[in-house]
Amino acid sequence: MKFLKVDSLEQARDKLAAALRDGFTQTEQVGLQEAAGRCLAEPVFCPKMVPDFRRSTVDGYAVSARDTQGAGESIPVFLDIVEEVAIGHPATRALKSGECAYVPTGGMLPDGADAMVMVEYTELFDEKSVAVYSAVSPGNAVVQVGEDARKGELLLERGTRLDAKRIGVLASIGKNQVRVFRPWRLTVISTGDELALPGEEKTACQVYDINTSALCALAQEHGMEVVEAVTLQDEEALLEQALRRSLTECDIVVISGGSSKGKKDMTARLIEKIAVPGVCTHGLALKPGKPTIIGTDESSGTLLIGLPGHPVAAIMVFELLLVWLQRRLYGEKEPLCIPAVLESNIPGAPGRATCQMVKLTASDSGYRARPVFGKSGLMSTLTQADGYVLLEVNEEGLRSGERVMVHPV
Amino acid sequence: MKFLKVDSLEQARDKLAAALRDGFTQTEQVGLQEAAGRCLAEPVFCPKMVPDFRRSTVDGYAVSARDTQGAGESIPVFLDIVEEVAIGHPATRALKSGECAYVPTGGMLPDGADAMVMVEYTELFDEKSVAVYSAVSPGNAVVQVGEDARKGELLLERGTRLDAKRIGVLASIGKNQVRVFRPWRLTVISTGDELALPGEEKTACQVYDINTSALCALAQEHGMEVVEAVTLQDEEALLEQALRRSLTECDIVVISGGSSKGKKDMTARLIEKIAVPGVCTHGLALKPGKPTIIGTDESSGTLLIGLPGHPVAAIMVFELLLVWLQRRLYGEKEPLCIPAVLESNIPGAPGRATCQMVKLTASDSGYRARPVFGKSGLMSTLTQADGYVLLEVNEEGLRSGERVMVHPV
Repeated sequence: MKFLKVDSLEQARDKLAAALRDGFTQTEQVGLQEAAGRCLAEPVFCPKMVPDFRRSTVDGYAVSARDTQGAGESIPVFLDIVEEVAIGHPATRALKSGECAYVPTGGMLPDGADAMVMVEYTELFDEKSVAVYSAVSPGNAVVQVGEDARKGELLLERGTRLDAKRIGVLASIGKNQVRVFRPWRLTVISTGDELALPGEEKTACQVYDINTSALCALAQEHGMEVVEAVTLQDEEALLEQALRRSLTECDIVVISGGSSKGKKDMTARLIEKIAVPGVCTHGLALKPGKPTIIGTDESSGTLLIGLPGHPVAAIMVFELLLVWLQRRLYGEKEPLCIPAVLESNIPGAPGRATCQMVKLTASDSGYRARPVFGKSGLMSTLTQADGYVLLEVNEEGLRSGERVMVHPV
Repeated sequence: MKFLKVDSLEQARDKLAAALRDGFTQTEQVGLQEAAGRCLAEPVFCPKMVPDFRRSTVDGYAVSARDTQGAGESIPVFLDIVEEVAIGHPATRALKSGECAYVPTGGMLPDGADAMVMVEYTELFDEKSVAVYSAVSPGNAVVQVGEDARKGELLLERGTRLDAKRIGVLASIGKNQVRVFRPWRLTVISTGDELALPGEEKTACQVYDINTSALCALAQEHGMEVVEAVTLQDEEALLEQALRRSLTECDIVVISGGSSKGKKDMTARLIEKIAVPGVCTHGLALKPGKPTIIGTDESSGTLLIGLPGHPVAAIMVFELLLVWLQRRLYGEKEPLCIPAVLESNIPGAPGRATCQMVKLTASDSGYRARPVFGKSGLMSTLTQADGYVLLEVNEEGLRSGERVMVHPV
């Protein structure tokens, strides 16, 4: 096997990004109802002025502001009502001096009008005329053409994750089809002679397979599609078969476990055997996350990732590599972090970055973050952690009382 | 119609919670793979000690710590190897004094052993014996029975939203079926003579229906199921028909729009006509959100909500009433907010609470929040807002530089 040294998180990320092929940024067209949660593969520009007509923001009378000059509570101005504009229908007559038209909220101002008078400041004099008790300035209670968004304006950047608000933006310009990134297809494999499947009886000295369920859920949270999820005994032939199948079926295969005696390097060995160029990172200078392996297969374009067997480490490395990669390739913005004040020290690790899970509690001034430690620490971390704090390589530990940014997981 | 006064947000919430029937907390059993994103309807307790055997955290030799006393770099202790424990398989022999057993990481310690010596501190002497170069204390590199979680311990509370970590917790105790809340069934209705459907040509003076798409996406983000989504002209007969159908088909019907002249009270009037006891809140002392209507129908148990026609107001009121209600009924924790420093003033509104959308930008010390204003402000709010700040009734406005908690939307 090639000589491979442990990579820093940055080195591993650079290799990942450099090794990838176009398959990871394929796109597809979906209907607006299916687009929620997906990531925009193209920027969206405003195709027309919004609004594309002069729109009233009140129920009242469209007027020429000049006609209302001098009007006041005791000195009304009388205007002739020449039209009642219906919402959703065009105004049909241009106003002349001394004329007005009734326009409801959201309705269109006729030509010749440049302001609205709220109905509360008017009184019907007879069917054909109205008394106006307030002088208005041009533009009063009117949204001008293009005032909300101009034709050609960038509304949504490529890489925007489509939540309810952004779905609303697409609807507002009449789009009912949108180009989004095709979800990455994943195979999730967990290996280990000690693994029992949830729902089955287990013997003492077996443990239930956590990683398959947790990693499938994590992948789906990030919009990826799990095409196969399997739990295998630590047998080289079984894993080789599963890996070879995944090369033809998916974009990424994630393997976790393989820590039985003599099987520790099985994942790396098999990636070297079946994939070309094979392993590019063997070990990550990250605590936890050391046993991470990154491999690529050029002919299929498949990415092969060996994750640590510890579920918390597996979740973190999945986030730090694959979710990071997706964000970078899609051009997606960093998600919001939660600023918090540390409640106790987090020690750094010499030569390694540290990823520490924390639990957040609300305080008067924001949040406090308490590291979730423990010898095994598995259950407490999985049940209590709200996110993680990342310490760069060579960063000294963090002290109680320091402000940190917590990445939600 | 009954005399109805405008309610504060708290009053409206109290009425909502009081009016609801059991249909809103029905539960169902789902498989672990379908449970991601769902909300736990029962607390989950640890059914067994975790781990349920004494587990090694290293590759090495299980020993009696007493046998290693006095061992050091230059003074090895020699022990007889009586077994090689395989991962996932029980240790079969109890150790006697002077004996040890090879145990891999994750493997089971035999009876008679109380500590592990890492393989790095040992040297094979011959096939049957090993030299130990380090003295260890009892418990060294061993996870004791129940150390990670004790039998009967509360692992996950009712109301826990099942993310990847919590799915991992369920897997770890072997659960592959879990009881979650059945999603609320929603009908989403938008009304307005001015509405055009996305994908269709629209005339000037029409506007595209934003609310149907945005509210459907919002409901789905919160795990609700949209059974019907319709856009209607502002005709009483059409709306009445849709409302009557929704009483038999869904838990909640959400109606937005209806602002054409003379149609403003159509939603309230129809709720009074078809539902008993009918409207309980007519107007919310909230900016924006005044035209909100809350009604209930006792015989079907259906909740009828009239939302403001403005998409941003509709999204906010949906969050503040329905998402709040779901959280309260499910016992779900408040989601994490983002602490931020205001970049400009937010004025309060006399006698009303204020819900102000803001855009967040990262700064050295955390985040800055900039209110998203604008006369129409529709597009800028939908494209830029990251969340909202809530000012209580009678709270004075907030000043630039104040710390606020931003609720992500």
